[in-house]
Amino acid sequence: MYSIGVDIGGSKIAAGLVGNDSKLISKKSSPFPRTGKPLDSIETIRSLINSLIAENGIKTGDIAAIGLAVPGSIDYASGVVINAHNLDYHDFPLCKLVGDDFPGVTIYLENDANAAALAEYYSGAFRGCSSGLLITIGTGIGGGLVLDGKIFVGGKKNGFEFGHAVLLFGGEPCTCGQRGCIESYCSAAALVREGRKAANDHHESAMFQRAQGDLSRINAKLVMDCAREGDAIASAVYNQFTDYLGATACTAIALFDPEIIAFGGGVSNDGEFLLAPIREYAKKYAFFKNHAKIVTAEMKNDAGIVGAAMLHLQR
Amino acid sequence: MYSIGVDIGGSKIAAGLVGNDSKLISKKSSPFPRTGKPLDSIETIRSLINSLIAENGIKTGDIAAIGLAVPGSIDYASGVVINAHNLDYHDFPLCKLVGDDFPGVTIYLENDANAAALAEYYSGAFRGCSSGLLITIGTGIGGGLVLDGKIFVGGKKNGFEFGHAVLLFGGEPCTCGQRGCIESYCSAAALVREGRKAANDHHESAMFQRAQGDLSRINAKLVMDCAREGDAIASAVYNQFTDYLGATACTAIALFDPEIIAFGGGVSNDGEFLLAPIREYAKKYAFFKNHAKIVTAEMKNDAGIVGAAMLHLQR
Repeated sequence: MYSIGVDIGGSKIAAGLVGNDSKLISKKSSPFPRTGKPLDSIETIRSLINSLIAENGIKTGDIAAIGLAVPGSIDYASGVVINAHNLDYHDFPLCKLVGDDFPGVTIYLENDANAAALAEYYSGAFRGCSSGLLITIGTGIGGGLVLDGKIFVGGKKNGFEFGHAVLLFGGEPCTCGQRGCIESYCSAAALVREGRKAANDHHESAMFQRAQGDLSRINAKLVMDCAREGDAIASAVYNQFTDYLGATACTAIALFDPEIIAFGGGVSNDGEFLLAPIREYAKKYAFFKNHAKIVTAEMKNDAGIVGAAMLHLQR
Repeated sequence: MYSIGVDIGGSKIAAGLVGNDSKLISKKSSPFPRTGKPLDSIETIRSLINSLIAENGIKTGDIAAIGLAVPGSIDYASGVVINAHNLDYHDFPLCKLVGDDFPGVTIYLENDANAAALAEYYSGAFRGCSSGLLITIGTGIGGGLVLDGKIFVGGKKNGFEFGHAVLLFGGEPCTCGQRGCIESYCSAAALVREGRKAANDHHESAMFQRAQGDLSRINAKLVMDCAREGDAIASAVYNQFTDYLGATACTAIALFDPEIIAFGGGVSNDGEFLLAPIREYAKKYAFFKNHAKIVTAEMKNDAGIVGAAMLHLQR
């Protein structure tokens, strides 16, 4: 038997066929239709799934399940997307809409950060562990937690919003309305904000020079490149950023004590340049001495697809 | 059948007989023997248990289990207390030592904050819920979490150290070596520290006046009394304190999304004076709108005993 995972994002919809061994066999994607009518995306999803089935010479009856991952909040019981702002899905009965096209196939729905953590559990960095936390550093912070081999969605099943735990009370405003959330200090957007602030204060900095004085050109990669090359201003910004991440890892260790913490997102592509200072911080300050291994995520861009395809193993 | 719970604290050891209905039937206590020999405490525990059995006219064979709660870290698999500094227990095989006196009775061991949460689950504020977080505000912060009806002890089973999640990165030093932990802003000790600091800066404050200029006389009750009576300086300190607690509740909601959050410890005896501002903060800032009820703990001083006695229902 096979399963199909669909990762529905604001820019594209990616679907993949996954075998019993949790390995991705084949994948396809299409742009998310920006028509203003969310129902049009159902047509895109259907045609991606049908193409996967046809091109791999299998039948709908060979599909054990279809899993859908969305960047938003979910009502698990009804299979409804409560809010996925990037997709313009609001109280959107996604499972039913997709399921109507594939009678007899069970449809599963999950938040994309949780699906990504599940992909690490079945096929990536969490293999061999029964618990793990995936922290995806992007414009925001995506957090997915596996405990006892199950995605953790909270006591009331509203979900798991790791990025909105408070890290610096009263600090920078967060998109959620609170101040000082993990997301407002540990996201790539936060690194960029701090890089631009420092460059503006220090026109002699390599960041300012390379951006030719145009602060809007300073992105996460530029801050990290300048820090790696030893620029003092960029290094100070980057060291502060990895300290925030270290403290975040310590919070995760005190609260979840997972076997493994994996960092994902573009910022983590550098591997040790990101991980070494976080490990050092945790070694110094983590409450438990035999704490989680700290690693990079492995599933990269396929995390959402593979995790969505694995959802049926969770229920 | 009955069970017996023993709450082993630095000042006293309290033991109680609990019936099948999770209700405390009878309790006794003795001072913790400050002899410098931790083994002497085993004799105290044995004699408390034997008295409970004798005085209630039952036999050892009527005891389904004995549960022990200690303020420290535990190795669950071996029944050993790794460290309980107040008791001078270090790598101390408590289950075996107590069990030797009661052959045929299974002995369970738990951290006291976790045991207290379990007491709320079986007999107190969490009744009817399958998840709940108990935050006990004392000299430190005790945190106990019940998820799906089970005490949560972390993925690696080191435990759950809610008080050592970071709340204000880089802030006040914490006993654990890190800075800005929840414990260093939300404990009664933190309220006292801030009250004394403000009184020292404002000799006109009611706190300073009532303490007759002796800052060491300012305790949590005095700060709260002055705030309740409208003193501006004490009110500012207390409002800041409840904001920290509000942010802590928001962190708990984002991460655990429990059905209920109960606050315990002396500071919570005031009920609404503590809860109302925390609820207001959570209403404003919690990520999930249909979030946990925020209440006071119910089990008070019996929490450790009752929770320890209920441990056998968890395994």
